Amino acid sequence: MGGDSGPDVAILGALAAVRSLDDLSVVLVGPEELLNTRLRELARGDSTALSRVSVHPASEIITMHDVPVDAIRKKKDATVVVGFDLIKTGQADAMVSAGNSGATMAAAVKKLGRLPGISRPGIASFFPTLKKPVMIMDIGANVDCRAQHLYQFAVMACACSRLLQRREQPRLGLLSIGEETGKGNALVKETYPLLQASPLNFIGNVEGRDIYRGDVDVVVCDGFIGNILLKTSEGLADAALKMIREEILKSWRAKIGYLLMRGALSQFKKKVDYAEYGGAPLLGINGTGIICHGSSDANALRNAIAVAADMTRHNVNAAIVRHLSEYRVEQESITQ
Amino acid sequence: MGGDSGPDVAILGALAAVRSLDDLSVVLVGPEELLNTRLRELARGDSTALSRVSVHPASEIITMHDVPVDAIRKKKDATVVVGFDLIKTGQADAMVSAGNSGATMAAAVKKLGRLPGISRPGIASFFPTLKKPVMIMDIGANVDCRAQHLYQFAVMACACSRLLQRREQPRLGLLSIGEETGKGNALVKETYPLLQASPLNFIGNVEGRDIYRGDVDVVVCDGFIGNILLKTSEGLADAALKMIREEILKSWRAKIGYLLMRGALSQFKKKVDYAEYGGAPLLGINGTGIICHGSSDANALRNAIAVAADMTRHNVNAAIVRHLSEYRVEQESITQ
Repeated sequence: MGGDSGPDVAILGALAAVRSLDDLSVVLVGPEELLNTRLRELARGDSTALSRVSVHPASEIITMHDVPVDAIRKKKDATVVVGFDLIKTGQADAMVSAGNSGATMAAAVKKLGRLPGISRPGIASFFPTLKKPVMIMDIGANVDCRAQHLYQFAVMACACSRLLQRREQPRLGLLSIGEETGKGNALVKETYPLLQASPLNFIGNVEGRDIYRGDVDVVVCDGFIGNILLKTSEGLADAALKMIREEILKSWRAKIGYLLMRGALSQFKKKVDYAEYGGAPLLGINGTGIICHGSSDANALRNAIAVAADMTRHNVNAAIVRHLSEYRVEQESITQ
Repeated sequence: MGGDSGPDVAILGALAAVRSLDDLSVVLVGPEELLNTRLRELARGDSTALSRVSVHPASEIITMHDVPVDAIRKKKDATVVVGFDLIKTGQADAMVSAGNSGATMAAAVKKLGRLPGISRPGIASFFPTLKKPVMIMDIGANVDCRAQHLYQFAVMACACSRLLQRREQPRLGLLSIGEETGKGNALVKETYPLLQASPLNFIGNVEGRDIYRGDVDVVVCDGFIGNILLKTSEGLADAALKMIREEILKSWRAKIGYLLMRGALSQFKKKVDYAEYGGAPLLGINGTGIICHGSSDANALRNAIAVAADMTRHNVNAAIVRHLSEYRVEQESITQ
C-alpha cells in the first residue's frame, strides 16, 4: 500500500511474478476487501495466477511523511509491520515494500532483529554501469559510520553479489577521492587496512567516476554519501534527458532525428532505470527484505519479488553469517 | 605547463583571452625559450595579441604524480610556485592552473596565506543545471570538516556567487539526505543552525537530485563528498553518452536519426561540459587562483582566465572578509 501509485502496481507486480517465476506465491498485505476486489479485477480470470496470490489483512498505512520509528510503534497494524510479522511467524520468507524506506528498515529490525555479529544493517543498491550493474552499500540507512560498519557492509554486499550476481570473487572497492592508498577522509583511512587484511577481493579505493565504468562489482561507503550518490545520479540522469529534449525541440531536423533514434534512447533509459534492477536489499537483518522506490511500477515490483525469491533460495543470510565468522578467524590469525 | 595537454592549450587560451577581453594581459609561466617559441608560432603574426601576452621563466614542473606538499617544498622553481610568487610580489593579480590541484592549493596557501578569519580555504565549482549553473563548495580541498568550516564555505561561496553570477541574494542549500530539518549526518545537523542564524539566504537542506534542477544557487558540503559528487557526475555524464552511442550503433535507423540530431546532442554536451564554466575558484586565500581540469582545452582556459579577471575586478576577497566580520557581529547580537 505504501508506494506512490497505490495498490494496483503491487497487485500487477505480484501477478507478473507468479506468472513468470516457478515455486513462488505472493501474499499481498493491506486492506483485505479492497485488495481482494482489485486482485480479482486485475487477474482477469487467470485462475492459475490467482491461486498463487493471497491477501493478508492489515488496516493501517505508514505514509512518506510519517517519522519511521514513531510510526512503527504507533501503527501496530501497518502493512510493513504486519509484513515482517509474517516472516517472523514463518508465514512468509521475504518482504518487498515500496513504502517509507525508513519505516521498512525500522520494522525489519524491530520484528526480525539483526544477524549475529552485525552491528548495523544497511541498504544495498544496484547501479547501472557500462558493463554489469555494481552493488553499492550503504545507500542511506547509516549516516555516521565507523570503520567496523563499513567492513561489515563489505562482507554483506560481497556475499550478496557472489550469490545473486554469480560473481565468484566480487571485486570490492572503497569509495574515496583518489585511487592511491592513503587518500580519503578519516573513515576511509581507517577502513582501508581492515578490507586489505580481509580475504575479500579488495581492489582499493575507487572514485565516483569509476563506478559507471563497471570495473568494480561492489562499492562500500557510509549511508550519507551513498544516499547522496544515488540521488545525484537519479537527478543528473533525469536532467540529462530533459536537456536533450529541450535541445531537440529547438530544431525540426533534430525532431525527425529523435523519432528515428527513439528506440535507442528508450533502450538507454531502460539501462539506467533503477526499476530494472529489482530494488534495494536490506542486508544484516535476520530475514529478507527489499526496499523499492516509492514511484515503482508493476515491472519494478515484479523484479524486486524475483530478487527477494533469489535471496531466499540462495540463503544469502547464512552466507553472510558464515563469512563474517570465517573472516574474523582469518583476521585474528593474521594479526597474531 | 601542468595540464595533460602541454603548454599549447595554455598559450592558445591566453591568446583567446586577450583577444576577447579588454584591459587584460596574461603572463605565461614556464620554460622561457619553449614558451616564447610556441607563443610566436601560435600567435601567427597577431602583434596586438602578442603585446599583451608575456613569458615569465620557471624551470620545474609538478606532475599529477607528485605529492603536493612535498613537491612545492622541493621544487621551488615550479610553475605553480613561481606563479603565486608573481601575485605576492604584485606582478600579477590572479593565477590560473590546469596542473596538480593539490599542489596549486598548497602553493597558494604557502605563498599568499589565508584571508583574515578563514580557517580553511576551499575549492568552489560550477555545476550545470536545468537553469543557471550552481556553485558547489568544497569540491575536494578539505576532507574532514567541522561545522565552522562549512559555515565559512557558505559565506565565501555566496559572496562569490553574488559578484560573479550577479545574484542579489544567492539561495544557499546544505547538502544532505532529506529536505527536512534534522535530516543528515552529525556535521549537517551541527551546521544547519549556524547557517539558519546567519544573514545568508539559507533555504535549508538540499538533496543530490535538487542540484540539477537549478532551484538553488550555492550548495555547501565537505570536500570529501563534494569531490565524490563532482567525479560521479562526470563519470555518469560520460557513461550516459557512451551508452547512447552503443544503442545507436545497433540500428541503421538510429544512426540516421543520430546524424540529424547531432547538433542537439552537441549542444547538450556543451551544456554539461565543465570546461564551459571556467574552472574552480580557490576561495579563502589572500589572492585569486583558479584550478582547471587537467584535461582542459584552450577554450576552458580562456574561460578560466575570464573568471579570474572577473574575481579580481569585483574584488571578491574584500567582500568575503567584509561579510565574514559583519555576519559575526550580527550572529553575536542574535545569540546575546
